[in-house]
Amino acid sequence: MKQLKGAVLFGQSGGPTSVINASAAGVFVEALKSDLVTEVYGAEHGIRGILEENFFDMRKEDLSELLLLKNTPSSELGSVRYKLKALEKDETDYKRILEVFEKYNIRYFFYNGGNDSMDTCNKISKYLQSKNYECRVMGVPKTIDNDLFGTDHCPGFASAAKYVATTMMEIYKDCHVYDTGLVTVVEVMGRNAGWLTASASLANLKGCGPDLIYLPELAFDVEKFVQDVTKVAKEKKNNVLVAISEGIKDKEGRYISEYANDLKRDSFGHAQLGGVASVLSGIISERLGVKVRPIEFSLMQRCGAHVASKTDVEEAFNAGSMAVKYALEGNTDKMVVFTRQNTKDYKISYDMLDLDKVANTEKTVPLEWITNNGTGISQEFADYALPLIQGVVDFPLEDGLPRFARLKKVRVEKK
Amino acid sequence: MKQLKGAVLFGQSGGPTSVINASAAGVFVEALKSDLVTEVYGAEHGIRGILEENFFDMRKEDLSELLLLKNTPSSELGSVRYKLKALEKDETDYKRILEVFEKYNIRYFFYNGGNDSMDTCNKISKYLQSKNYECRVMGVPKTIDNDLFGTDHCPGFASAAKYVATTMMEIYKDCHVYDTGLVTVVEVMGRNAGWLTASASLANLKGCGPDLIYLPELAFDVEKFVQDVTKVAKEKKNNVLVAISEGIKDKEGRYISEYANDLKRDSFGHAQLGGVASVLSGIISERLGVKVRPIEFSLMQRCGAHVASKTDVEEAFNAGSMAVKYALEGNTDKMVVFTRQNTKDYKISYDMLDLDKVANTEKTVPLEWITNNGTGISQEFADYALPLIQGVVDFPLEDGLPRFARLKKVRVEKK
Repeated sequence: MKQLKGAVLFGQSGGPTSVINASAAGVFVEALKSDLVTEVYGAEHGIRGILEENFFDMRKEDLSELLLLKNTPSSELGSVRYKLKALEKDETDYKRILEVFEKYNIRYFFYNGGNDSMDTCNKISKYLQSKNYECRVMGVPKTIDNDLFGTDHCPGFASAAKYVATTMMEIYKDCHVYDTGLVTVVEVMGRNAGWLTASASLANLKGCGPDLIYLPELAFDVEKFVQDVTKVAKEKKNNVLVAISEGIKDKEGRYISEYANDLKRDSFGHAQLGGVASVLSGIISERLGVKVRPIEFSLMQRCGAHVASKTDVEEAFNAGSMAVKYALEGNTDKMVVFTRQNTKDYKISYDMLDLDKVANTEKTVPLEWITNNGTGISQEFADYALPLIQGVVDFPLEDGLPRFARLKKVRVEKK
Repeated sequence: MKQLKGAVLFGQSGGPTSVINASAAGVFVEALKSDLVTEVYGAEHGIRGILEENFFDMRKEDLSELLLLKNTPSSELGSVRYKLKALEKDETDYKRILEVFEKYNIRYFFYNGGNDSMDTCNKISKYLQSKNYECRVMGVPKTIDNDLFGTDHCPGFASAAKYVATTMMEIYKDCHVYDTGLVTVVEVMGRNAGWLTASASLANLKGCGPDLIYLPELAFDVEKFVQDVTKVAKEKKNNVLVAISEGIKDKEGRYISEYANDLKRDSFGHAQLGGVASVLSGIISERLGVKVRPIEFSLMQRCGAHVASKTDVEEAFNAGSMAVKYALEGNTDKMVVFTRQNTKDYKISYDMLDLDKVANTEKTVPLEWITNNGTGISQEFADYALPLIQGVVDFPLEDGLPRFARLKKVRVEKK
């Protein structure tokens, strides 16, 4: 295998998670070890930082602070939602990226994100290849949605799932405290895949979970929903706890959240969601005449690093460091994936999959895991998800508050 | 001092907290030790359980499960919002309470709650005295609002404050991730007292706090608010983080949340709040034309036991056990209060205050602690609040999820 000497460039993209910075730490720590690596750059705001040559010099950071990234939520270098145009339509961005890569002698490029980011990563990889610019490109997976194809699960999912299950148990205790009846409708993130909403069912293993769970994998019917809630309300003195995905749609494909507002769309053309709990709470209040409380887990579910899964943090870190190792070994045009081993105790191996195969393919919850006439989740899901949320992070504190990484963020002079 | 032999009765009342069950544990564990105590009853749904003779036999519980109450959020025996009518208007409930106390030989009564609950406790205490029924009555303080008079702080507040500060830091990281600008408006609980909203300012000590904080202690002016946000938006590329109390009112005394909906009122006549973040987000979006995200900490802030303050958990437990000790020593008609010692390291003593003095007096944030033209919180608040949120709870887990107490809840046969 040919040894390739040059600079490493790393970027973060898409929605934040509790552990995306753990992957960054993995990339940086591993890259800093290698003699082949001349520079370690962090792009500010992902692809935008590349286009605008906004780089941080990661060699200037203290190792101890880089390691604190493991417990620092969100994307410390800044994230971006920027869609590269199709090459055949507009080559401008691609040319610019090649120009910047050449200027900084970037020979290793790591992009950390979900579906859209892997699409970006794939496009860049293919373009550089077509121009015979030698650069090893690796995708590092990340998404609380857990919807990336080809990997057992995605870094970020487990910590969000642990937040959802833990908080659901706490909320269960709270909303069952009065004898006067309360319907609580909790909205969980997940655009097209219900993995995170399904995680609410883990709370049921401890007797403190939702009575009804609705995933976006099935068409949502408001009348059936009202009937489902009515039935539970009768059995449980109007105390009903519901978990619902933000992305539920009716059989015409219309988002239920759209029933209230016109939807805004992000730059990938995805509908910007939120508010479905509020919409459904209004309907239940009107139809059943009971007290209803809508709750959104909002940003908290994706940045709740204080309740992160240790397994997730370690795997996210390893995903970053393995990406660097694989690239240094000569691999390119791949994403790091997790393969669950067929062992008694939970174990994964870190493998690779072609970026082509990953990009823009969404992995949803198997329909056979959705039970109870579309309102429950099967034991198979618990068997799948429980190992992922194990382990308590040794979360560093200072004055009783989180001690996040304090990076110097030394800017690289533009060439 | 005369020794009094008889049954102990304990009830929980008002809104749940992360540590109200810790006080219950304190009461039960201490009561179970004493030879003077013939029975230990837990009232189901507070005062309603007394009126309806719905008691649990706490002597039937395992000690290990009672101790797990220290880490089990919300009110395990069930809570209630029930207002005793003024005695001169209707004696029915009072007569019934006396009847039940006599029937079960209740000689020790502990009521755990906030302002309204202390009013209830006080009324019962005075009525029993007027009827020469010997019973030692003690209030055990509880409220995330921290608005009880005569105590340095209230059990429940610190854990909620820790949730607010920690989550605010995490949200700060999340909502500053894009370079496209986002105004985030976070709504924090607190009807008339801004203690909990002020806790968001602790996140500023770590550089990850809100730009603007609004407490209910000051009249809220929507035009000034728009100006404040506009100013920060100009300085910070439209990235603005705001913490706002659910209870803010305009100078006519009208809740800002009322601007959108008609308010429902609870049985104490308090307006049921929520939605102010949504109201203000709509205004900002319209006036500034920027992206805005409203966030409600909702039930999570008061039941987030997984991030509870160890100091709070221990103090809540001690508040319960001290109430029992004081009552056994002959004290009655008091509430347990915390007095901060004038020592270098944080230390409190557990004292008592007449129920008369506590009931229905609200303690609000000193106006001189509100700085920066009504948008900031002074260092005095940090000095006050920081010691309270210290310590990490040894939170028991099972399968990676909280291991809450599992009580048998053996019902006492009605006499």
